[in-house]
Amino acid sequence: MTNGLLVFQSDFGNSDGAVSAMHGVANSVQFSLSIYEITHQIPQYNIWEASYRLLQAIGYWPKGTVFISIVDPGVGSDRLSIVAKTKDDHYIVTPDNGTLTHVQQFIQITEVREIDETKNRLPNSGESHTFHGRDIFAYTAARLSAGVISFEEVGPALDPAKIVTLPLKHARLQDETIFGHVDIIDRPFGNIWTNISRTQFNQLGQSYGDALEVSIVTDGRTIYNNIMTYGRSFADLHIGEPLVYVNSLDNIGIAINQGSFADAYRIGTGTNWEVIIRKAPRITYD
Amino acid sequence: MTNGLLVFQSDFGNSDGAVSAMHGVANSVQFSLSIYEITHQIPQYNIWEASYRLLQAIGYWPKGTVFISIVDPGVGSDRLSIVAKTKDDHYIVTPDNGTLTHVQQFIQITEVREIDETKNRLPNSGESHTFHGRDIFAYTAARLSAGVISFEEVGPALDPAKIVTLPLKHARLQDETIFGHVDIIDRPFGNIWTNISRTQFNQLGQSYGDALEVSIVTDGRTIYNNIMTYGRSFADLHIGEPLVYVNSLDNIGIAINQGSFADAYRIGTGTNWEVIIRKAPRITYD
Amino acid sequence: MTNGLLVFQSDFGNSDGAVSAMHGVANSVQFSLSIYEITHQIPQYNIWEASYRLLQAIGYWPKGTVFISIVDPGVGSDRLSIVAKTKDDHYIVTPDNGTLTHVQQFIQITEVREIDETKNRLPNSGESHTFHGRDIFAYTAARLSAGVISFEEVGPALDPAKIVTLPLKHARLQDETIFGHVDIIDRPFGNIWTNISRTQFNQLGQSYGDALEVSIVTDGRTIYNNIMTYGRSFADLHIGEPLVYVNSLDNIGIAINQGSFADAYRIGTGTNWEVIIRKAPRITYD
Repeated sequence: MTNGLLVFQSDFGNSDGAVSAMHGVANSVQFSLSIYEITHQIPQYNIWEASYRLLQAIGYWPKGTVFISIVDPGVGSDRLSIVAKTKDDHYIVTPDNGTLTHVQQFIQITEVREIDETKNRLPNSGESHTFHGRDIFAYTAARLSAGVISFEEVGPALDPAKIVTLPLKHARLQDETIFGHVDIIDRPFGNIWTNISRTQFNQLGQSYGDALEVSIVTDGRTIYNNIMTYGRSFADLHIGEPLVYVNSLDNIGIAINQGSFADAYRIGTGTNWEVIIRKAPRITYD
Repeated sequence: MTNGLLVFQSDFGNSDGAVSAMHGVANSVQFSLSIYEITHQIPQYNIWEASYRLLQAIGYWPKGTVFISIVDPGVGSDRLSIVAKTKDDHYIVTPDNGTLTHVQQFIQITEVREIDETKNRLPNSGESHTFHGRDIFAYTAARLSAGVISFEEVGPALDPAKIVTLPLKHARLQDETIFGHVDIIDRPFGNIWTNISRTQFNQLGQSYGDALEVSIVTDGRTIYNNIMTYGRSFADLHIGEPLVYVNSLDNIGIAINQGSFADAYRIGTGTNWEVIIRKAPRITYD
Repeated sequence: MTNGLLVFQSDFGNSDGAVSAMHGVANSVQFSLSIYEITHQIPQYNIWEASYRLLQAIGYWPKGTVFISIVDPGVGSDRLSIVAKTKDDHYIVTPDNGTLTHVQQFIQITEVREIDETKNRLPNSGESHTFHGRDIFAYTAARLSAGVISFEEVGPALDPAKIVTLPLKHARLQDETIFGHVDIIDRPFGNIWTNISRTQFNQLGQSYGDALEVSIVTDGRTIYNNIMTYGRSFADLHIGEPLVYVNSLDNIGIAINQGSFADAYRIGTGTNWEVIIRKAPRITYD
């Protein structure tokens, strides 16, 4: 059951009237919906980041909340328009283009419906075929959230196993060393968020305050190699000191306390930005 | 009749407390108003863009919605503070400085009231005369939206034909060629939005998939001249290919599929940025 | 008594899922809260600006509104998490790090409670200790706003006189000259907002239209020295003319009509950016 909460995400930015047109469509479907946003500043066409930001927010919303994510480089192609339902009873209205990658992997999608665009399209939405966010996604999501249509009335069922996903590479432990990569930069702070989970990381057997050796490698080139502390929080360190920490998604982050690690070392994101963590060697002086 | 929906637009940006002070004033008038934004990132003092963004959003909101637009380089001058009512029963609270140009032209304004600032001004709003957005516009709009005052109680009626408008130049068809100009850049995507309507454009007699010759000329200099496809949507083209398309306002747009046309060719906006479209000549090789 | 209004401020930016996670937590506590923002674009770790923006907005919201301000360079340290109550019955949920400086000085804080984090922490909020905004502040503020907990149930009372404040330097009048400094830049417009109040300024005895001599000095160097008009509003001046005016906080501002004073003269902020205003000498030609 939906609950009247509607949460938008897109790569439209906040400087024109596009988002407001979608909000207007939702309010035209029904007044009393509660409308929120994740962000409209997903980098243009960046499906990976849309998928990641969705995972970052979705778990904190009540059951029955309807999410709309519109990062849609294939608008007008034969990519499907779908509504997915998660194991936790959240709904996501989105083009089927990989936006559900992280939610599928870390939460699980239990049912999917293809949007029947002959029924679920803003009446009189005209000749333009370039703004499905307004004409199809916002309209369908608002009607679903308001209970005007049921999940079944969205359109025909699809196999959740067959939705489009982006390749996800997992971190691995080998010889008491963890090999992961940079998933995303935590802007505006500039912290590095890796794909190494806290549980994987704990297999190293370290405790808060221990020294770790961190290397970051891209294209075979070592960009960074240094010893830093595993901090319970930033405040355990001096200002300007680097640290390894558990971020708000329960993954491992790397930061400079009150500085920007990503800017300091020009760190990028993706599987080509490898992060290698091991316990720091104990140095003994004879 | 107003409906309790209040939609803000301004050039205040989102980095200080100004917008929140306006929201606070509205909530102090009445709790249960539903407050939304078009954008607060109109370029400073750019009345043209305020007028355009208003047109982009207004039609998708329910009848009775009250809009507030505050791009007000003349605050404190003898420019009037007004509330306009459109043919579609939307209300717009704004300085009378040209902000209503597009709505007047493409929707139509049927009634106008001058805000009587002796009655419609935030009590105890102090000695400052530089923030009418908070002290007059937000206060009046909230009271109108909440039904505390009627449209008539805003102040004396004005002649809708006498509101200030900016010059609007229309596109024209001549010798099977359309001459228009760049109205605005569709940020953050960088697509060009012209003042050529779909109906005008159709007089060329072209179909989806046809080749068109597009020239962009500024100050007599040709900035761009190339053949491109008339696409039903972006997905009909290869990534990186240019296209002519119908945008979400039912006007003609020019874009690079997944690129930024405006950045690629440093395209500006206004009547000095001419867009010329004709059917591409058929090339025959002997 | 709280009123169900919840107003957020932070330095998180608007480009990721962090703010939405906080909104989700608040909606999970109770659906019917009305959620607003001051801004999430406080410069990172800038407690001074957080304090200033809070003062700029707070007075326009109804009694009982709950504010959350999260600019928290010391997250995880022994800095306290507190809820302050003002003389005007507003509540502010914040780390105790100086964020309350301006509200304490210009409005007054009458009661303070330390958040008991053993009771007031999002259930199952996991091992991460770096996102108190979501796990402690948003959760506590939402429960306070919704009436799930009373102010007393936040935790033990603290002495309002003992909260952390940043040093505030006041402007002074000497020899018919006012000495103040630049408190903040009014972005995106680029106007200078000083710490000189209207009442102090009036002791110079000037009237609208009078000429004033304004100097701006930093590190002993005079950056700006010129005669300008005391304007009732910007519109009293020609476009491009500088003026002294009363800003929306009832303090003295310095601006270029429709230009950016801060950019024109590269003006910074803080006590090291002195602003000196006196009546302009009457020039007599023999």
